[in-house]
Amino acid sequence: MAFWQEYENINQELNEVRNMIIKNTKNKYLGEVIEPMVYSSGKMLRPAFVLISGKFGECDTDKLKKFAMIIEILHMATLIHDDIIDDAEIRRGQPSIQAEKGKNAAVFIGDYYLCQCFLMLSNDYEQDDLQQIARVINSICIAEVQQNYNKRNNHLSVRNYLKVISGKTAALFALSFYMGAKVGNCDLKLCQELGRLGKYIGMAFQIMDDILDYLSDEASLGKENNKDIQQGYYTLPLIYALNNEQGVELKSFIEKEEFTKEDYALIVKMVKDNGGISYAMQLAQTYVDKAFNIIKNLPECESKTMLQDITGKLLQRKY
Amino acid sequence: MAFWQEYENINQELNEVRNMIIKNTKNKYLGEVIEPMVYSSGKMLRPAFVLISGKFGECDTDKLKKFAMIIEILHMATLIHDDIIDDAEIRRGQPSIQAEKGKNAAVFIGDYYLCQCFLMLSNDYEQDDLQQIARVINSICIAEVQQNYNKRNNHLSVRNYLKVISGKTAALFALSFYMGAKVGNCDLKLCQELGRLGKYIGMAFQIMDDILDYLSDEASLGKENNKDIQQGYYTLPLIYALNNEQGVELKSFIEKEEFTKEDYALIVKMVKDNGGISYAMQLAQTYVDKAFNIIKNLPECESKTMLQDITGKLLQRKY
Repeated sequence: MAFWQEYENINQELNEVRNMIIKNTKNKYLGEVIEPMVYSSGKMLRPAFVLISGKFGECDTDKLKKFAMIIEILHMATLIHDDIIDDAEIRRGQPSIQAEKGKNAAVFIGDYYLCQCFLMLSNDYEQDDLQQIARVINSICIAEVQQNYNKRNNHLSVRNYLKVISGKTAALFALSFYMGAKVGNCDLKLCQELGRLGKYIGMAFQIMDDILDYLSDEASLGKENNKDIQQGYYTLPLIYALNNEQGVELKSFIEKEEFTKEDYALIVKMVKDNGGISYAMQLAQTYVDKAFNIIKNLPECESKTMLQDITGKLLQRKY
Repeated sequence: MAFWQEYENINQELNEVRNMIIKNTKNKYLGEVIEPMVYSSGKMLRPAFVLISGKFGECDTDKLKKFAMIIEILHMATLIHDDIIDDAEIRRGQPSIQAEKGKNAAVFIGDYYLCQCFLMLSNDYEQDDLQQIARVINSICIAEVQQNYNKRNNHLSVRNYLKVISGKTAALFALSFYMGAKVGNCDLKLCQELGRLGKYIGMAFQIMDDILDYLSDEASLGKENNKDIQQGYYTLPLIYALNNEQGVELKSFIEKEEFTKEDYALIVKMVKDNGGISYAMQLAQTYVDKAFNIIKNLPECESKTMLQDITGKLLQRKY
């Protein structure tokens, strides 16, 4: 995995987490349906953050890897259902499960993995941890519902956008950091600080993700890049541009039912010209700054150095 | 609710459970989307069984009602996803959520209610109960996956059918009985006996449900009645008939892509003529007998009388 190759230990442990996922999600009727997702180019950020966070404490690596596995399965379950809604053909450079097996099967397959997570969690975790985890999964669902509700609403506020990505992406990042530290037996204050750090990194990550939809070509992104607008999901660059000078022109343009490649290129140009990308970059920078503010007070260790590195790279992401 | 009107206490408590569901599933973005399902003609068997079972013990009614609510929300979440797969337009005599809000929204709405269950469960239940519950939810998912895998397979065995309905329907009935008794502080042996009773009632109930698809008209069923065959889901009456004398003729007939009303009527006739209905009735009778065998040893109380009544009525169901 290119992303982690500098960090030998994490890279090795993530490979083990991968194998654990394959082993634990096998099903007689499904086979190893998520294997292509697991072995794809996905960066495995969430399980990596569990591992990195856990190493701030006294560390039982097996317990950490198990939680990392659960978090990644949970994330994949949400992706499977996301891809149904988005009609996504490609996920992590591979055919999506909805494209491969059909939408109907994908509903159950996502349900199955979601339930597998709950089953695995109910075996090992205490009630207060389970509550915390259930609340996060719930917040992901609410954010998805909210995002669906916002579809084709061209009066969205930046605040509304931030609320959705906070529930959808940042909450799961925060949980990965918080629970990683908890499983690693860190003291509660450190768990909470790492949780906050996860939230900021998650916000910056999602904003960058949404920016990349406007900048990248399909091949490097590993998924289709003009789906968001076509599906009626408006993200930060567009939301900012809609609320700005050329907003009126842009508004009438995105109301079209179908976009040609040329239409899409024009929207991207208008969003760029109208400052949507640079505004979103600034906001991502703000969250990166918040993240660095937390990192600088963390205890010195290998994990701290890694978090500094990764956070530094967030704004330079190309894929 | 016609089904429970003879039993004033249960009827009253089920009304309270209904109101609790409405109150606890409200969502800013969804509104009261499941309200029509809650106030429809659904028999609320699962929550009723929680209440009836709990009354075998020392009973904290509020705790019982809360668990009854969670079980019904869980059941509704699975129905919402089922209806996506089945293209069902009608559910409990009302437009289904997938018909009303679209398939995409229905994916999230089902996820949301499923997660609400886990959130509510994680607040109140001990680890061994949570494990039990998670295992059942998992078994429902596996059965759905299995059922989907079996689609359009005209070599299905009765054993395979029983395995699917055992995971899909009977497991949730068993859980309602078992956990009702557990919440009602019954001793473990009684909880387990009631769990077994729930399983047998669930098996009989599902077999009757599948028989009714061949006997009823749409209006009294509250859902479309020829969907199963059209969708490629083959249930007991058809499975028996396929494995029997006229099986070959039936086999070539159900392989058609589209059925007219006349085709469907002919299939129904062939299934009936070939003994599919009477075989299924016999099997339902076997499970009813097993249920009565357990009931007769239960301690004398109002709940026992009710279970006798209800079990006696299972085979007379018209809807």
